[in-house]
Amino acid sequence: MSRMIDTATAAAMLTAEEDILLLTHQYPDGDTIGSAFALCRALRAMGKRARVECTDEIPEKYDYMLSELPTEDFEPRFIVAVDVADRKLLGGLEERYADRIDLCIDHHGSNTEYADYLLLRADYAAAAMVVCEVLREMNIPFDQAIAECIYTGISTDTGCFKYSNADAYTHRMAADMMEYGVRYDMINRTMFDVKSRARVELERRALAGMRFFADGKIAVMPITCAMITESGAAENDMEGLAPLPRQIEGVWVGVTLREKPNGEFKISVRTGNHADASAICKELGGGGHVRAAGCSLTGSLDNAVDTMVQTITRVVDSI
Amino acid sequence: MSRMIDTATAAAMLTAEEDILLLTHQYPDGDTIGSAFALCRALRAMGKRARVECTDEIPEKYDYMLSELPTEDFEPRFIVAVDVADRKLLGGLEERYADRIDLCIDHHGSNTEYADYLLLRADYAAAAMVVCEVLREMNIPFDQAIAECIYTGISTDTGCFKYSNADAYTHRMAADMMEYGVRYDMINRTMFDVKSRARVELERRALAGMRFFADGKIAVMPITCAMITESGAAENDMEGLAPLPRQIEGVWVGVTLREKPNGEFKISVRTGNHADASAICKELGGGGHVRAAGCSLTGSLDNAVDTMVQTITRVVDSI
Repeated sequence: MSRMIDTATAAAMLTAEEDILLLTHQYPDGDTIGSAFALCRALRAMGKRARVECTDEIPEKYDYMLSELPTEDFEPRFIVAVDVADRKLLGGLEERYADRIDLCIDHHGSNTEYADYLLLRADYAAAAMVVCEVLREMNIPFDQAIAECIYTGISTDTGCFKYSNADAYTHRMAADMMEYGVRYDMINRTMFDVKSRARVELERRALAGMRFFADGKIAVMPITCAMITESGAAENDMEGLAPLPRQIEGVWVGVTLREKPNGEFKISVRTGNHADASAICKELGGGGHVRAAGCSLTGSLDNAVDTMVQTITRVVDSI
Repeated sequence: MSRMIDTATAAAMLTAEEDILLLTHQYPDGDTIGSAFALCRALRAMGKRARVECTDEIPEKYDYMLSELPTEDFEPRFIVAVDVADRKLLGGLEERYADRIDLCIDHHGSNTEYADYLLLRADYAAAAMVVCEVLREMNIPFDQAIAECIYTGISTDTGCFKYSNADAYTHRMAADMMEYGVRYDMINRTMFDVKSRARVELERRALAGMRFFADGKIAVMPITCAMITESGAAENDMEGLAPLPRQIEGVWVGVTLREKPNGEFKISVRTGNHADASAICKELGGGGHVRAAGCSLTGSLDNAVDTMVQTITRVVDSI
């Protein structure tokens, strides 16, 4: 169990400590990277040694947050994890660091309290918003680089202000950051407008294989190993495919079946107001949230599709 | 020429006038509809008669802005056009009303000054933002319905806060509106997340026909009459296709060729930092902006593609 602390206490800790290591989660996204580099830049501006570590290579598209920030080599005396809900999410860094994390700054209600101290704001859209409040409490002078890190965390975790977590406070904090000259046009184009060739190839194969059932209320999109191989898609080319079937007009339940090399199907279910994704997946040994849930199936693709359609028509009223 | 007026003068006019007709532009979007219905609701709340007219039917997805607002029949004594840059954009309503428009509230720098009075804020992301300032000046009590109209105008005209026009003031005004209980999650899902079946069918055909040139720096996406017929796509299913080729990683110039029933190709060119779309299209008798331009070509699809690729490689340095 962590000791829960407030913003002022976290700020005081960071002000007092030296040689600070900042850890992100694996498969890093804009929020964990933005949170870590905003803190790193702020701590260095205070004259402290600080660096960011991530078990995975940071994707090139985030380069603008890392620029002119040479890495520093030192033995960490204070370790902070940002946007990391569970020690397992440290990936390859878990073994080395997980038992000695002093502070975790997070916004996941599901945080497993693996750190000594935890600053948690589960009502915030992004960990970067919690970091922003800590930096304000520390009286750090904000600059464009720090503001771009915070803005990136907010923008990426809200789907560019599209998701329900983008409330008025979120917009106002983003606006405050923009006053420091944030290149939001470049950032949002980079985050939301660029698709790899492999992703486009995969998307067109996946769309071509989409099948509709129940008068168009169920859409099933298989993503087979063959499609992945043919398109040359890597893991990060597959982000954000799961919502596609449900975005089609008239679809109540959108299903994505991703074939794994071992023949298993990893299944994502997305629903609108008319159906409970979690209830559907629970029937098949999975689980999740009302709007987004998952489960696994083995067997042939056709069987997996049949099972999903049968389960959905049984669980969802009047579909 | 219009007489240019400020927000306070526009507010005073609207406060003084009765029986007010509000006009939107043709092919109405979230901003013209949001602006018109925000004004209509506010004027009615003041006890005035007011109604909105549009030459086209308002698409169903905007229904939430129109609800519980029965239309009123009266002979207009004051006519206001909102978000209408040119009288031609009134479409079928031009003949009846264009010569007697008292006030235009707009944010297009290209406004042709067809109204007697013009309140223009060319630096604003949305006409709805100008309307919002007018309503504030009129001391209208904002409610959820009015706030949803303003929010919709802002969100749709900024691509959900993604475009360069979404500055700090834009975010702050959106945040102010959200305090009135705006259902922003529903609104943004409806505006940005729903695709028609026909659109998905068309998109997958268009993606399958995409061709790459110049080592992947040029992407050309033909949309043929056959694709449109096969997918069952209507005009509004084709919105927003033009940016797709340029969104692919490594693409400097994205070209969309849309075949018209008369055999002509309507061509959209989109570029990033490396190329000038307007310079390319000018070579072929077209024109536009640096990042987005257009032109027309006749002949076979293959010839049109060849002409585009040749022109691009000639005009764009080191492609």
